[in-house]
Amino acid sequence: MIDLRSDTLTQPTKRMRQAIFEATVGDDVYGEDPTINRLEELAAEMLGKEDALFVTSGTQGNQLAVLGFCSPGDEIIVESESHIFFYEGGAISALAGVQPRVIQGIKGAMDPNEVKSAIRSEDIHFPDTSLICLENTHNRSGGSIVSTENMKDIFQVAQKASIPVHIDGARLFNAAVASNKKVTDYTQYCDSVQICLSKGLGSPVGSLLAGKKEVIQKARKWRKRLGGGLRQAGFLAASGIISLTEMVDRLAEDHEKAMRLADAIEDISGLSLKNRPDTNIVIVNIEETQKSNEEFLDDLKREGVLAVSFGEGQIRLTTHYDVSLEDIDQAISALKKIV
Amino acid sequence: MIDLRSDTLTQPTKRMRQAIFEATVGDDVYGEDPTINRLEELAAEMLGKEDALFVTSGTQGNQLAVLGFCSPGDEIIVESESHIFFYEGGAISALAGVQPRVIQGIKGAMDPNEVKSAIRSEDIHFPDTSLICLENTHNRSGGSIVSTENMKDIFQVAQKASIPVHIDGARLFNAAVASNKKVTDYTQYCDSVQICLSKGLGSPVGSLLAGKKEVIQKARKWRKRLGGGLRQAGFLAASGIISLTEMVDRLAEDHEKAMRLADAIEDISGLSLKNRPDTNIVIVNIEETQKSNEEFLDDLKREGVLAVSFGEGQIRLTTHYDVSLEDIDQAISALKKIV
Amino acid sequence: MIDLRSDTLTQPTKRMRQAIFEATVGDDVYGEDPTINRLEELAAEMLGKEDALFVTSGTQGNQLAVLGFCSPGDEIIVESESHIFFYEGGAISALAGVQPRVIQGIKGAMDPNEVKSAIRSEDIHFPDTSLICLENTHNRSGGSIVSTENMKDIFQVAQKASIPVHIDGARLFNAAVASNKKVTDYTQYCDSVQICLSKGLGSPVGSLLAGKKEVIQKARKWRKRLGGGLRQAGFLAASGIISLTEMVDRLAEDHEKAMRLADAIEDISGLSLKNRPDTNIVIVNIEETQKSNEEFLDDLKREGVLAVSFGEGQIRLTTHYDVSLEDIDQAISALKKIV
Amino acid sequence: MIDLRSDTLTQPTKRMRQAIFEATVGDDVYGEDPTINRLEELAAEMLGKEDALFVTSGTQGNQLAVLGFCSPGDEIIVESESHIFFYEGGAISALAGVQPRVIQGIKGAMDPNEVKSAIRSEDIHFPDTSLICLENTHNRSGGSIVSTENMKDIFQVAQKASIPVHIDGARLFNAAVASNKKVTDYTQYCDSVQICLSKGLGSPVGSLLAGKKEVIQKARKWRKRLGGGLRQAGFLAASGIISLTEMVDRLAEDHEKAMRLADAIEDISGLSLKNRPDTNIVIVNIEETQKSNEEFLDDLKREGVLAVSFGEGQIRLTTHYDVSLEDIDQAISALKKIV
Repeated sequence: MIDLRSDTLTQPTKRMRQAIFEATVGDDVYGEDPTINRLEELAAEMLGKEDALFVTSGTQGNQLAVLGFCSPGDEIIVESESHIFFYEGGAISALAGVQPRVIQGIKGAMDPNEVKSAIRSEDIHFPDTSLICLENTHNRSGGSIVSTENMKDIFQVAQKASIPVHIDGARLFNAAVASNKKVTDYTQYCDSVQICLSKGLGSPVGSLLAGKKEVIQKARKWRKRLGGGLRQAGFLAASGIISLTEMVDRLAEDHEKAMRLADAIEDISGLSLKNRPDTNIVIVNIEETQKSNEEFLDDLKREGVLAVSFGEGQIRLTTHYDVSLEDIDQAISALKKIV
Repeated sequence: MIDLRSDTLTQPTKRMRQAIFEATVGDDVYGEDPTINRLEELAAEMLGKEDALFVTSGTQGNQLAVLGFCSPGDEIIVESESHIFFYEGGAISALAGVQPRVIQGIKGAMDPNEVKSAIRSEDIHFPDTSLICLENTHNRSGGSIVSTENMKDIFQVAQKASIPVHIDGARLFNAAVASNKKVTDYTQYCDSVQICLSKGLGSPVGSLLAGKKEVIQKARKWRKRLGGGLRQAGFLAASGIISLTEMVDRLAEDHEKAMRLADAIEDISGLSLKNRPDTNIVIVNIEETQKSNEEFLDDLKREGVLAVSFGEGQIRLTTHYDVSLEDIDQAISALKKIV
Repeated sequence: MIDLRSDTLTQPTKRMRQAIFEATVGDDVYGEDPTINRLEELAAEMLGKEDALFVTSGTQGNQLAVLGFCSPGDEIIVESESHIFFYEGGAISALAGVQPRVIQGIKGAMDPNEVKSAIRSEDIHFPDTSLICLENTHNRSGGSIVSTENMKDIFQVAQKASIPVHIDGARLFNAAVASNKKVTDYTQYCDSVQICLSKGLGSPVGSLLAGKKEVIQKARKWRKRLGGGLRQAGFLAASGIISLTEMVDRLAEDHEKAMRLADAIEDISGLSLKNRPDTNIVIVNIEETQKSNEEFLDDLKREGVLAVSFGEGQIRLTTHYDVSLEDIDQAISALKKIV
Repeated sequence: MIDLRSDTLTQPTKRMRQAIFEATVGDDVYGEDPTINRLEELAAEMLGKEDALFVTSGTQGNQLAVLGFCSPGDEIIVESESHIFFYEGGAISALAGVQPRVIQGIKGAMDPNEVKSAIRSEDIHFPDTSLICLENTHNRSGGSIVSTENMKDIFQVAQKASIPVHIDGARLFNAAVASNKKVTDYTQYCDSVQICLSKGLGSPVGSLLAGKKEVIQKARKWRKRLGGGLRQAGFLAASGIISLTEMVDRLAEDHEKAMRLADAIEDISGLSLKNRPDTNIVIVNIEETQKSNEEFLDDLKREGVLAVSFGEGQIRLTTHYDVSLEDIDQAISALKKIV
């Protein structure tokens, strides 16, 4: 099976398994896990922030940012199909008691003027706007890169209004690698950022939230309440260190695979791309095939390829470490065959 | 001063004052206020529901519906400029822990197909959709009437998905009177409805939430938690009974005043209407006057007329019991003078 | 019927009805109700605080204090049978997300050393202690007065730890009158205080929360979210002004009636007092009568007297404006007869 | 250093490291991690429940039980020094919006009659009691075993009132081993139970929540909201399987070490035991030494032994896999020396 459902499905590499096996660990609730401490320092430095915190998932990192910056009754500005709004079970409202104000982006990028208009003025009827969230790359629009220019503009709007900015950067390294920029070119325009060690970076579990010391301190306490305070978490951190030091540049390969896939799909009549892929996600319109998503995915599965449904008439294919260029070619053949 | 800022500004009528003066009251926490009990029965009957509950404001009635139908982590579908989302301080998320999913309506009416698409499927990443909220008449689009056909279609979508529908009917009687329909022609398409005794119906304080017995029972307990359980509330109910029995038909006069105002505004160069008013709210585009909202409202005030800002380049004028047709003519003169 | 169930049952006086009838009102959401404004100023002055806010109930006033001072994940120190913990539907946790830490008081008064021990130290496992709540007089222990000395000691503990103190003073004027002190002798030892206009002070509806300007401002916004932002609330305020200016000294009469009742009960074999009453609440042990609470209350009702159950083997009798000394004598006869 | 601060500090065994190294993993969000699936089945079977869920900590397991059984505005009955109330950052109120009702236990065991009295009756002023939580062994009272008889009695009270019972069984296997009972002798008296794979069972990370299918399904969705939905969590599960299959009987050794420590302490003048230890936790009164906790712990550290402060005048020593009987003897010598 060629599994293109998600880059979260990657198996850890041999080097990761070895690092996990040999990890020096301690009790992280006491702050005594040296491997966690090393990973957190490394991440803070790479992301250009004062401090960082290991968390068990991207969702947890995002929620901790919201819990850290906001109070119940606040409003936060989010993109209308952002993960934090679309895929986190309504947790921003359930846990932090905040109301999302959505803005429809173009390929994930919100118009800075719309962001500005969406900031609430002082009025007894209004919630206070207390956070602006960006997602980069933007999953639902197909791994699109939100440009540093767009981020800068939004950050300036935010700063004028004294509102912090959080980046859901689950796949921010994909953006940096694909645009040939440093990750700090992006993170300079935020107050906090969450990045994932899994997905393209291959680790089995874990994300990091980075920001100012006081934000991370608040997040650390909330992480405990959410049950995310682990004991010998160093096992997970050992792999995470390899993700950050050895797996980042490799993301270019995933992008190449996605591009090859996209190029081929453009030539298959009946299929079309939602967008040219910026990174490792390819969203395909299948409406012309007259098949339902379910039928299409079943047919594809029969040809040895797994993908996921992605809204009406669309499926998503995601490239990652565990699929080779040959696998891509085979996936292309499968697509051709079933159309 | 001719005060067109809001219909919430109305002074109670003499008959209301007299009724308040003479009210028989008891302790409503013990269920012993006869005037409250009479008002609640009357409202339930008029709205075609099993039971009703007196609440201190439209906001409280709306929030109790959300608290009654939803659990934290749920999602509710609301119109993008609905009062419950726009003007209630983020309370749906702060109190009930639910996430709003907004749909942009046309004159307040949401497309039933969009509502259908917005209902979440079963997925571990998704909140559960547990309520659909309508607002009728719709304040932000200028007191627009949402048609019974639209309501019926949305209600059918909701019922197929086993999701309850709540109407924010703060001004539902305006819709009924203006469309020459019974209020139950509207409320047949909902599981709960909130109506206001203040605004066009003139009472100083109070709203009602109506629905099935078990919904109202849940709401009664939550009302206590919110501090809305009153003691001798019959004073307020006495006026409310007059609102429901003597003030409803009178709303036609407010609509007539709004129409006269709108007709005149269409002829004033520099001003234009956002919509032809359906009921008692007139929203005016003032952009061509080159004045800021603040300047415009100040100029108007100097001419003896009060209105409110309603988003960039727009002001809102609302007719009600305390403005006469002569006042409207005077307001028209004032508008002509300052343009 | 002689109704001793609660002082919340009082009917407004003729002067109150007249004041309500003649009230000058405006829209309080716009801050334009002159009667509300006057009441709030009067209350702030009498309570020795910067500002005050009219609320629809004691519960609402208490909850707004908690919402104003605390964040979710905090802990607040409360007496184990205090109203805010015992009788408000779990609202402190449901609305503000705070965890109560209870201390068992003696006649409602908590030991300052126990309060000190209950304040949490800095630890990642611990919630932060962010409020200490007192109740004076203390309902569940029979309207007991918490002494100014006790309040002072607790306030000093609180100040050393930089933790604010809130008084649930629903019946604080009873404490002041019965102890021959000014109400500010009590309120000097708190950061916020809630007092009720109903109960012994006779108004139909309403309470006030008083404190620093920023606390009241926060409370005002939360009041809107709870649906407690009223329109022409001046009707209620008109009565409230009479409560504060004309009804306070009168509370001594209620205490006299309670004392007469208590004296008599001490002489009825089979009945005994929980405590000698400090103010207007008399709690009676009825266990020796071998009757269940229900039977006892039914028997009493048959003799024309109403009271309420107050935990196993106890009933509560409360004196107020609407019962005379003669009524008390009749109630005593009824008690004698049924035992 | 002989580290007696906590059994959470244990290093994973060699066999655990090997199992982690060789783990077959998959994406658990897709339900495809075979090792997680095996662990969950194993745990459900051992605990005698329909289903089980892997969670990242005991806190997360406890919170998911509360989120699964309760609604905001409910009340839950907990022991006054239970972990869920004392050590989880107020999360029950912050996340689930429930209010704790505390009962002071004797060595962790609550009196069933007190539990019964604490269950709220139906009243508009009262929260609904929706969960009873036990902790076994009970950490704060020194790893005390709550007897099956006590659990049975409380469970019967609970069942009569249709209220579910949750056991915080972070160290439930200690209770079972020390009392020579099966763990199901305990878990038969609950609706859900949380057990830890770390602590005495030695795994680096992880706990399990077990109960009926619908409880676990609800917990699974809430786990996602809390960010506890992991990807290749099988690495952690591989170790967990060893904990459950190879480390349980070994707990007897920890109890033996604690007993030896306790026996010796009873003979050291100046020190005394809070209780005879039932399992692996020894709480020592040090007040007679006239030293502050801090001084005492510092002195002990200088002698090569680590312990933790446990309330005024008390320290806690916990035995576990990584301390030998020789270490215990050395710790005893250190204690003797510094007193």
